[in-house]
Amino acid sequence: MPVVQTVSWSPDGRGVRIVDQRRLPGEFVERDLRTVDDVCEAIRTLAVRGAPAIGVAGAMGLVASLTPFGSDSVEPLRARLLEHADAIRSARPTAVNLPWAIDRLLAAAGEATDSADLLECLRQEADAIREEDRAMCERIGAHGATLIANDARVLTHCNAGALATAGIGTALAPVYVAARAGRVAHVYAGETRPLLQGSRLTAWELARAGIPVTVLPDGAAAALLRTGAVALVIVGADRIAANGDVANKIGTYGLALAARHHEVPFYVAAPTSTLDPLTATGDQIPIEHRSPDEVLKPLGTPNATAFNPAFDVTPAALITGYITDRGVFRDPAALAASRALSAESFA
Amino acid sequence: MPVVQTVSWSPDGRGVRIVDQRRLPGEFVERDLRTVDDVCEAIRTLAVRGAPAIGVAGAMGLVASLTPFGSDSVEPLRARLLEHADAIRSARPTAVNLPWAIDRLLAAAGEATDSADLLECLRQEADAIREEDRAMCERIGAHGATLIANDARVLTHCNAGALATAGIGTALAPVYVAARAGRVAHVYAGETRPLLQGSRLTAWELARAGIPVTVLPDGAAAALLRTGAVALVIVGADRIAANGDVANKIGTYGLALAARHHEVPFYVAAPTSTLDPLTATGDQIPIEHRSPDEVLKPLGTPNATAFNPAFDVTPAALITGYITDRGVFRDPAALAASRALSAESFA
Repeated sequence: MPVVQTVSWSPDGRGVRIVDQRRLPGEFVERDLRTVDDVCEAIRTLAVRGAPAIGVAGAMGLVASLTPFGSDSVEPLRARLLEHADAIRSARPTAVNLPWAIDRLLAAAGEATDSADLLECLRQEADAIREEDRAMCERIGAHGATLIANDARVLTHCNAGALATAGIGTALAPVYVAARAGRVAHVYAGETRPLLQGSRLTAWELARAGIPVTVLPDGAAAALLRTGAVALVIVGADRIAANGDVANKIGTYGLALAARHHEVPFYVAAPTSTLDPLTATGDQIPIEHRSPDEVLKPLGTPNATAFNPAFDVTPAALITGYITDRGVFRDPAALAASRALSAESFA
Repeated sequence: MPVVQTVSWSPDGRGVRIVDQRRLPGEFVERDLRTVDDVCEAIRTLAVRGAPAIGVAGAMGLVASLTPFGSDSVEPLRARLLEHADAIRSARPTAVNLPWAIDRLLAAAGEATDSADLLECLRQEADAIREEDRAMCERIGAHGATLIANDARVLTHCNAGALATAGIGTALAPVYVAARAGRVAHVYAGETRPLLQGSRLTAWELARAGIPVTVLPDGAAAALLRTGAVALVIVGADRIAANGDVANKIGTYGLALAARHHEVPFYVAAPTSTLDPLTATGDQIPIEHRSPDEVLKPLGTPNATAFNPAFDVTPAALITGYITDRGVFRDPAALAASRALSAESFA
C-alpha cells in the first residue's frame, strides 16, 4: 500500500523533491526544487500545499537553496541564509507552519562555526522537522484507527491526507493505519467545491494507496448519511479555538449538521498544535473570503456575485471527538489542557 | 424586469422558439424548432428542460411539426399526427408532463373533420397548455409572494425558474412577484453540482431580470444560513409523496437540515399536480442515479467511483409549507386533499 510521499530529498541530496499538486489528478509529476526561486514559486503557486507540508518543504528547500554555496566562507553563507529565509518565509504569509519552520532553522544555525557545520546543522534541523511531522501523522493515525471498526466506511471532506503533510496525513492517517490492518472497507470523499481538493487530491491519493474511494458532490453528503452507509466522518482542521470550535474547509459545518441528525460520529483529526489558546471561540476566527472567480469563472455566469468563504466554523457541540497526536479527546477542555503541556507546539 | 420567455411561437407561427439552455450562461441563443426531429433533439439533449417546459414545448412542437402538412387531406394528416406524437412522447420517457401534454393534443384532435380544423384544434390545445402553465406559475408566485417580507433575502437551489416552465417558474415565481413589488433584496443560488443548474441557469435568469443574485458552492449553504442573511428558503419539487415528503434535486435535503437548525423557514413550491397520491412516502420514490462521469470526468480522477444520485428526499417534517397554485399549505394532508379536488391534474 504505497502512500504517496509528498516531500523528500532528491536522490542527489541537493534538492527537495515534491509532488506537483497542480498537475493532479491528471498527471503524477515530481519536481526537484533547487534554488530559492524554485522553492518560493512552488509554495506560492500551490504546487506544494497543506500547512504541515509547506513547513517541511520550506525548511528542506532553504537547505537545498544553500547547498551550492557550501564552499563560501561562513559569514557570506550566513548572510545568504538570512536572505533566502526571508524570501521563503514570505512566499505564503498566512501559513503559520512556514515561518515557524524557517525560524527553527535560523535558531539551529546559531551555533555553527564553519560553512560545512552550518549546512549540516540546517540539514539536521530540516530532517528533524520532517521526521516530527511524519511521526505526528503516525500518532494521529494510531489513535484514530482505534475508532475504525472492521469494514467501516469513512466519509471525509477536502484533503487532509498525505498530500498535505510529510507523512500519512491527519484526517486520512487513521484511514491508512486501519487499512494497513485490513479494516477500512471504503472511503467517501466529498469533492469540495470550489477547488475540488476532495476529488482532485483525496481520491487520487487513496486510489494510489489501493483504498477504494467514492467521490460525491458536496450536496449529496446528507443523502449519503441517510443511507446508513457511513460509519464515521473524519475531517481535518485549520484552527481549533480554545472552546473546541473548529475552522475547516467550507462544507465541514453542513456535514457536521447532517452527521449529527443521522447520529453518525463526527471526528476532527489534527495535531495538538492546531488548537489556538488565544482564540476563545470559533466566532473569533477570521474567515478568509476567496475570489468570486473560483465560483463564477468556470461557467462565465454574468452579473452575479459569489459567496465564497474558504472555511466555515463547526461548533464544538457537533464534534464527537478530536483525534490528535496525543490521543483522542472527547472534551475540548482536555484537548486544551494537553496542548498547554506541549513542548513542541508552534502556534 | 424582463423575465426570460423560455417557450413561445416563432414570429411566423410555424415553429416553437426556445431558449437553448445548453448554451447558457455563456450565450443567449434562441432556436426555432420546426420539424419533429428538431423537437425531439431539443428535448433529448436538454436544450429545453424542466418538466413543465418540456410538456409545453412538446405540445407546441407537435403542432409546428404538422404545420407544413396542412394541405394534406385529413386522414394522412391524422396518421402523421400519431407518428410525430409517438416520436416526441418518447424523446424523454421519464418526464410525466410530456406524455400528458401529447395525450391532451391527441384527445383534442378527435373531433376535427378537416385538416384546417385539425391543425386549429391542436394549436388551440397547445396554447391552452401553455397558458395553463403560465397561469399556474403566476398563482404560485402570488401565493408565495405573501411569504416574502420587505428586503427579504431568499435562498434557492437548482433551477425551478422561468427556464423550467412556460411562465415565471415555480420556486422562483414568488421571487419574481415579490420583486415586481420591490420586495426582494437579493437571491442566493446554490450552484447545484454536478450539473450546476444554479450557477448556469438560476443566476442567469435572475440577473437578466435585474434581481441581484449571489452564487454559492453547495457546501457553503450551512455557513450562509448561520450568518442570518437568509430570510427563507424556496426550492422546487420533482415529486411530492402523499405524506408530504419531497423528492428534489440532490442537495435539497442537506439544505433543509441546515435551515431547520437555524430556524429559517423552508418552503417547497410546486403545482398541486406534483403531489403523487400513489406514492405513500418519500422512501417509495425511486431515485435516479446518474453517470459517475458527471462527477469524475471534468477532473479525470482515476480509479474512483462516484455517488451521484440526481435527487434526494426531504422529509415532510423539515418543510415549513408547500407553495402551490391553490395556496400555501402548512399541512401535507391539506395539500393532498386539495390535489384530490383538482380537475386539471395529470399525474
